[in-house]
Amino acid sequence: MAQTLTEKILKSHLVEPSELPGRGEDIAIRMDQTLTQDATGTMAYLQFETIGLDRVKTELSVSYIDHNTLQVDFRNMDDHRYLQSIAERYGLWFSRAGNGICHQVHLERFGVPGKTLLGSDSHTPTGGGIGMIAIGAGGLDVAVAMGGGAFHLNMPKIIGVKLTGELRTGVSAKDVILEVLRRETVKGGVGSVYEYFGPGVVALSVPQRATITNMGAELGATCSIFPSDSVTRDFLVQMGRPGDFTALAADEGAIYDRVIEIDLSSLNPLAAQPHSPDAVVPVAEIAGKKVSQVVIGSCTNSSLRDLTAVAAIVKGKTIAPDVEAGIAPGSRQTLMQAEKTGVLGELIRAGFRILESACGPCIGMGFAPNSGGVSLRTFNRNFKGRSGTADAEVYLVSPETAAAAAITGVITDPLSENKDITENSKLFEADISGIHDDDMLVPPLGPEKAKKVEIVRGPNIKPCPTSPELPDSLSLPVLLKTGDNVSTDDIMPAGAKVLPLRSNIPEISKFTFERLDPDFYDRAKNTDGCFVVGGENYGQGSSREHAALAPMYLGVRAVIVKSFARIHRANLVNYGILPLVFEDPALYDAISRDDILELTGIHQSLEQGGPFKFRRVSDGLQFTAKNDLDKRSRDILLAGGRVAYTRKGGQ
Amino acid sequence: MAQTLTEKILKSHLVEPSELPGRGEDIAIRMDQTLTQDATGTMAYLQFETIGLDRVKTELSVSYIDHNTLQVDFRNMDDHRYLQSIAERYGLWFSRAGNGICHQVHLERFGVPGKTLLGSDSHTPTGGGIGMIAIGAGGLDVAVAMGGGAFHLNMPKIIGVKLTGELRTGVSAKDVILEVLRRETVKGGVGSVYEYFGPGVVALSVPQRATITNMGAELGATCSIFPSDSVTRDFLVQMGRPGDFTALAADEGAIYDRVIEIDLSSLNPLAAQPHSPDAVVPVAEIAGKKVSQVVIGSCTNSSLRDLTAVAAIVKGKTIAPDVEAGIAPGSRQTLMQAEKTGVLGELIRAGFRILESACGPCIGMGFAPNSGGVSLRTFNRNFKGRSGTADAEVYLVSPETAAAAAITGVITDPLSENKDITENSKLFEADISGIHDDDMLVPPLGPEKAKKVEIVRGPNIKPCPTSPELPDSLSLPVLLKTGDNVSTDDIMPAGAKVLPLRSNIPEISKFTFERLDPDFYDRAKNTDGCFVVGGENYGQGSSREHAALAPMYLGVRAVIVKSFARIHRANLVNYGILPLVFEDPALYDAISRDDILELTGIHQSLEQGGPFKFRRVSDGLQFTAKNDLDKRSRDILLAGGRVAYTRKGGQ
Repeated sequence: MAQTLTEKILKSHLVEPSELPGRGEDIAIRMDQTLTQDATGTMAYLQFETIGLDRVKTELSVSYIDHNTLQVDFRNMDDHRYLQSIAERYGLWFSRAGNGICHQVHLERFGVPGKTLLGSDSHTPTGGGIGMIAIGAGGLDVAVAMGGGAFHLNMPKIIGVKLTGELRTGVSAKDVILEVLRRETVKGGVGSVYEYFGPGVVALSVPQRATITNMGAELGATCSIFPSDSVTRDFLVQMGRPGDFTALAADEGAIYDRVIEIDLSSLNPLAAQPHSPDAVVPVAEIAGKKVSQVVIGSCTNSSLRDLTAVAAIVKGKTIAPDVEAGIAPGSRQTLMQAEKTGVLGELIRAGFRILESACGPCIGMGFAPNSGGVSLRTFNRNFKGRSGTADAEVYLVSPETAAAAAITGVITDPLSENKDITENSKLFEADISGIHDDDMLVPPLGPEKAKKVEIVRGPNIKPCPTSPELPDSLSLPVLLKTGDNVSTDDIMPAGAKVLPLRSNIPEISKFTFERLDPDFYDRAKNTDGCFVVGGENYGQGSSREHAALAPMYLGVRAVIVKSFARIHRANLVNYGILPLVFEDPALYDAISRDDILELTGIHQSLEQGGPFKFRRVSDGLQFTAKNDLDKRSRDILLAGGRVAYTRKGGQ
Repeated sequence: MAQTLTEKILKSHLVEPSELPGRGEDIAIRMDQTLTQDATGTMAYLQFETIGLDRVKTELSVSYIDHNTLQVDFRNMDDHRYLQSIAERYGLWFSRAGNGICHQVHLERFGVPGKTLLGSDSHTPTGGGIGMIAIGAGGLDVAVAMGGGAFHLNMPKIIGVKLTGELRTGVSAKDVILEVLRRETVKGGVGSVYEYFGPGVVALSVPQRATITNMGAELGATCSIFPSDSVTRDFLVQMGRPGDFTALAADEGAIYDRVIEIDLSSLNPLAAQPHSPDAVVPVAEIAGKKVSQVVIGSCTNSSLRDLTAVAAIVKGKTIAPDVEAGIAPGSRQTLMQAEKTGVLGELIRAGFRILESACGPCIGMGFAPNSGGVSLRTFNRNFKGRSGTADAEVYLVSPETAAAAAITGVITDPLSENKDITENSKLFEADISGIHDDDMLVPPLGPEKAKKVEIVRGPNIKPCPTSPELPDSLSLPVLLKTGDNVSTDDIMPAGAKVLPLRSNIPEISKFTFERLDPDFYDRAKNTDGCFVVGGENYGQGSSREHAALAPMYLGVRAVIVKSFARIHRANLVNYGILPLVFEDPALYDAISRDDILELTGIHQSLEQGGPFKFRRVSDGLQFTAKNDLDKRSRDILLAGGRVAYTRKGGQ
């Protein structure tokens, strides 16, 4: 039977069952590669240490430093040293601070078509641009995968995205994914893989494809994938890795769960308005709005192609006097290429502040806009406050749109710059085939040398707290009731103040739900356990497991919502918090903060299935939550979380 | 009579008296130029606004953004926008964020031999490298100078530094100033100007001279100065400003207060050990010590010459695997030149993290070392904790020494790299004469346009409170009684929590006397004016004006002590607080907290001299305070502080 590319790769990596089951059924797949970054990595490796293995069992595992490079105190660099010593001890590659953003570097140096990749970062699906099944997960899942354990997920729906035509100059990959977001919304991809195909694919370079698969994360998708074709081969040849190429595509006549079609030639420059990646409008519609800041970079848009497009637009011009503009090349290799081609020189000359090759402003590490500022960013998320400035208005745009605004000082449709881009781009052509950057990648040590490595632990690196046992019944207050689309940023913010505490749960938990309810921490500390009630798409956004770990530490025992974002739900299971869904969404309206709810028969519901039964103490109101958890998730919850489950031999 | 260069410039700028007086006497000089940076600038301009002039009266005034460029929240960029609007409104140049460190940019674009420069940054003496009398001062002094007011100082001693011989390759300007610090110590220059002369001068480029005058600040000197000669002319020609050149030197036979002599050819690479810039030893003596971090940059060592020396040493090599290395070019112009010459490409290739052209790690804004880390830095200060890591060990070294350690991973004498440096430097020769960077400098607006500019004030920027009028008598409680040696840190702490509030006196005042008495703020807010009583050496330490400004805001009307530190006493005068000294120190013991004291005949004491008369209300105890204030200080106090004094035409 004709298969999609997704099905082919999943099938070749299937651990159980033996054949691909129906959509939504549990599957376990082997992970060829893993990646971590430093914000989630410390916790992942603390957990890997707890599991107690001697060496990673994957084909390739890489530990990247890219999030915490501001270093306002000892914590960040202590984390870097911990991670470097872990990499040496357990057989991982280590990508040194300054070497670039994990997804960009991984694509350039390690990505292999047809392989699977699990990463403790929600934008791991970037690897789909080179034909990988690349999935973001919590650190604990990645720790288990490094130990050779399978990764469990529900067999996804496979949504075909048929691309036809060719992008006009001034329109780029970012506009493609913004168009998908406009149509599908931030919830459209839950439980799904977006598989791109069709005659339009060949006109997109691998970095452009990676922009699209990267921001598939904002659709809530499991991952996104492009075929591996001659364009992929050329990319791998340029990267000095021709041997890593395999041609891969869906079979002729493969059946998708549903197909959406995009005519690339008809696309216009688009922008996601504040404060959601799917609040998409044509740039032309908002043109003329005054801009105070422009930032180019992030794992979504920081390739040489993107920087060159910017240089072509700003060629000979200067950043508008009342705009601050920054640009962060995605990797040191990109930076070296940009230097060679003259792109870097042109960006400096135009007045861009050259930021480190790191996540930087995208994760709220610096470059916060002014009060009420309008910031155009080529990033993937524009949640309120994520920039570091609570009342800033952040628009997500292509590098072309960002560059045009940097020069004019107002939101500007880059199609008006069409001629310049085409002509000027030629000025930056140079032979960059020799520029591969592996010098700042530290290779794994051999097993004998590795055993002698001592782990370096700074004073901020604390052991990971363990989940409590799950009793058969709970009678606890609803300590918080949230609206729809609560992001993991809302549950546990990122930013310069909080990120350095990622390896210190007692400290970081003080920021739990800080934006929604600044008193939550104090109330939780004075309450012996609690529930949280939420709306639709609870836990969207970043994969950070601290959004489960800190609530667990503060005594949250169940989260009852209208619907969950996939990764966050899995994280709640891993940390022993019941992730429950109202059988009747209308009940959401009936429940208030401070209601005391009784949840009974928990063990039976987990062992045998059947709904979870709630009763409100004040008036006896009864309601149920669905039991749509798979057997393994239920077993993990019964065991008291993933660590306990793994220790008991669970896979 | 034969004059030193210092005497010539001071004399040509003398406002009063009409001839240069003896050492230590008060002189007032005209300031041709001023500069501010963003950490001190906001308050300087808030004060300038209060003075109420329509436009700066200097030949040239520049407002730089270089300190707060991390931008972890709205405050930094709000400050940038405030400063930019102030520059437009009042006729200043504005150097945009990313354009570079004030002292480096000023040297390149604005420095003129023979001119005077007052800057609200302690490293303003950098300008002495191009033959200026360039002095660091408080924001209020700079505000007054911008308004055309004279700058008052005591006629300094002039210490001649005779340079002979020529530096060997691998030894550079940083080693010269470290040698001066080794001999003179951090207190050696108090009340003095260091004037360099002799046959060794001509072999030092202007940026090398500027390294030496910059770090003269660490000697406690008023400033340092080099002659303006053919080397200066060549520098100005290269900067595209040949017309700004004048030849300047001391007269033959000029008499210095004292002369020290340094044979440059005998100098070895030196390092200032933790935690003082004068703890200087030969690098060879500490060679082999393991290093975890190397940082090159700051206003001391970030010129193209310095970056080129580094590139020559690291050519073809890679930063040692367990060292994190960063480099911050001093200005965007330097960055552009480094790009043109290939230096930048080589630094990136070697594995340096390229940091923004800003002060950055030198003022603890990022790149903090690991716990207990050893950090080699080309900066000017290594006070404990300044790096952001309390227990880090910071060594101050030349770019050559820093580069050698970055490669080897241990402290290394760069003389061992001698051959490489000489040969490799030739690889980076290129014509950079056309590269001048004024694009990110916003020139002053014409007077008519300027008047229409509206000042942009973020929510953290509050008007500078004005001193109240001084009545003829006061009857107020002693709200605080302190012991001896109270520092300005005790009166108003620094640190990451407090610094962002520098432009917000109502907020920052909450920290007043926080270490000595956490309730002081609350009590002061509930009291309508008060006195403070203190012991010996009250107000020692940093010169920060906020230690006078915040008490003034909280209603402190007089501080009565056994003795004062000099600068703090001057600050109290400037902010209209009576700084009084017990005539009989034994009375200190008699006075208690909460005593109500009557101070009468204030105006007469200030107008005519004679002691200040106190009476304790509870028991009629009478005592007096000395009147040893000079006439100008008494006039300032009578006027109600320096701002009011200046508005009334006081000089």
